[in-house]
Amino acid sequence: MPDNITVLGLGLMGSALARALLAAGHHVTVWNRTPAKADPLIAKGAARAATPAEAVEASPLVIVCLLDYPSVYEALKEVSLAGKTVVNLTTGRPAEAREAASWARGADYLDGGIMAVPQMIAGPGALILYSGSKDAFDRHEQALAVMAEPRYVGADPGMAPLLDLAMLTGMYGQIAGFLEAAALVTSAKYPLTEFTTTLLIPWLNAMAALGSAWAEKIETGDHRTEVSNLEINKAGLENLVRTFREQGVKPDLLLPMKTVIDQRVAKGLGHEGLSVLIEELA
Amino acid sequence: MPDNITVLGLGLMGSALARALLAAGHHVTVWNRTPAKADPLIAKGAARAATPAEAVEASPLVIVCLLDYPSVYEALKEVSLAGKTVVNLTTGRPAEAREAASWARGADYLDGGIMAVPQMIAGPGALILYSGSKDAFDRHEQALAVMAEPRYVGADPGMAPLLDLAMLTGMYGQIAGFLEAAALVTSAKYPLTEFTTTLLIPWLNAMAALGSAWAEKIETGDHRTEVSNLEINKAGLENLVRTFREQGVKPDLLLPMKTVIDQRVAKGLGHEGLSVLIEELA
Repeated sequence: MPDNITVLGLGLMGSALARALLAAGHHVTVWNRTPAKADPLIAKGAARAATPAEAVEASPLVIVCLLDYPSVYEALKEVSLAGKTVVNLTTGRPAEAREAASWARGADYLDGGIMAVPQMIAGPGALILYSGSKDAFDRHEQALAVMAEPRYVGADPGMAPLLDLAMLTGMYGQIAGFLEAAALVTSAKYPLTEFTTTLLIPWLNAMAALGSAWAEKIETGDHRTEVSNLEINKAGLENLVRTFREQGVKPDLLLPMKTVIDQRVAKGLGHEGLSVLIEELA
Repeated sequence: MPDNITVLGLGLMGSALARALLAAGHHVTVWNRTPAKADPLIAKGAARAATPAEAVEASPLVIVCLLDYPSVYEALKEVSLAGKTVVNLTTGRPAEAREAASWARGADYLDGGIMAVPQMIAGPGALILYSGSKDAFDRHEQALAVMAEPRYVGADPGMAPLLDLAMLTGMYGQIAGFLEAAALVTSAKYPLTEFTTTLLIPWLNAMAALGSAWAEKIETGDHRTEVSNLEINKAGLENLVRTFREQGVKPDLLLPMKTVIDQRVAKGLGHEGLSVLIEELA
């Protein structure tokens, strides 16, 4: 059954979300500060709202995807949200999500973290994390599923943006490692695409799979290892950094990892596994 | 057909290699500086050599797995290697491998990088990179395959250790990202094993798969992007670092990535994709 759904904010992401909802047969009302951005969606059957108030008025479910949280307040400051469900997919910090949730009193509030680029919306692999009102999630799960796989992660409205940022954190580490590896391989004139495809990616996937065991070590606080303790990794990283210098490549992106291992070994804790390093980050 | 194969060095890794060769039916001669370490292998049918010279004498194929390159020279300094194939799996830098190859004149020399822990030897997923004499590799490939999947990566003897270190580099980046992500998730009291298993690992695998496209961008020098340029990532990392501070977690392992992005944007190159950062490492 088609729902009435409003989308506020028609940047690349907001437009992709609105398109997905339209394609699924929903009645979509759209608003954007620059009205021309709505034109392609109007052509596909969306209704244009002249103001945020008019847009919110049109639907019980209001999806917000603006530039940042200040833009959300600017757009909605004089709009009544009473009785509405607000799903805020605007990118922000957990603290901003919590603040918005208490600001939006009278509405059922869900905050979201989109784990996809606009091109991936409504396609395989796209995931959106939601946190806040469980009622709102259950009521609208089917409509939300049209945009991306929906995953509810808790009542704290800050949890979806926090886990979103944690996933990006993991990604940035992986990218840093890839860039350093690529620089080393390139310095030796080995074909980079072949190295990446046949050696690095399978290796990273195998290593990522160990993450669950590491997570258990962190949860139990038992960081013993029979494989590769900090002492061994200290020697390995010294080898590695020396090779980088010999090949004329800067190991800068890896140096804090070396520093934190060296610190821990200097404390006499070189017998533990790498997972213990989380204690140096608290 | 069983070969005569010598293994020098019976640490955890050397012992695992010798066990794999014995299990495959080869005639294995072993030597270790501390003779007692050979006992479990002798019990399984290996022959004990009293000296490195006696061990080398026993087989045309000599596998070396000692603590470091100085230990290799120490063990073999007065031993004739003429007509032998030396497969040096001792951990070291590319420069050390090249030096050892020219030192071992008279022998066919292969250097190797073991992408496995001892427990993985002779099992699925274990890989050993080899570089140096292609003839030696072709002649002994079947015997080598008993220990781990053998992969020949080029005539430069330094290439196997270099690619080995590049794979470790990628792994260290991934570990750094995992540790930071885990610290953030833990600070919010979200179950870490669940986060890692259901969210982070699938996400990292999806992101790793993009590595081949990144490698092509680096090989062609075309770093244009329609998805996520440096400007956007600069804003993302600012958000992220601020969230770390708000959650009381140190973002130290990620900071050089932020620095290098900020530098590049400050040069007016914020429109390019993240793969361009390799130019900051040269």
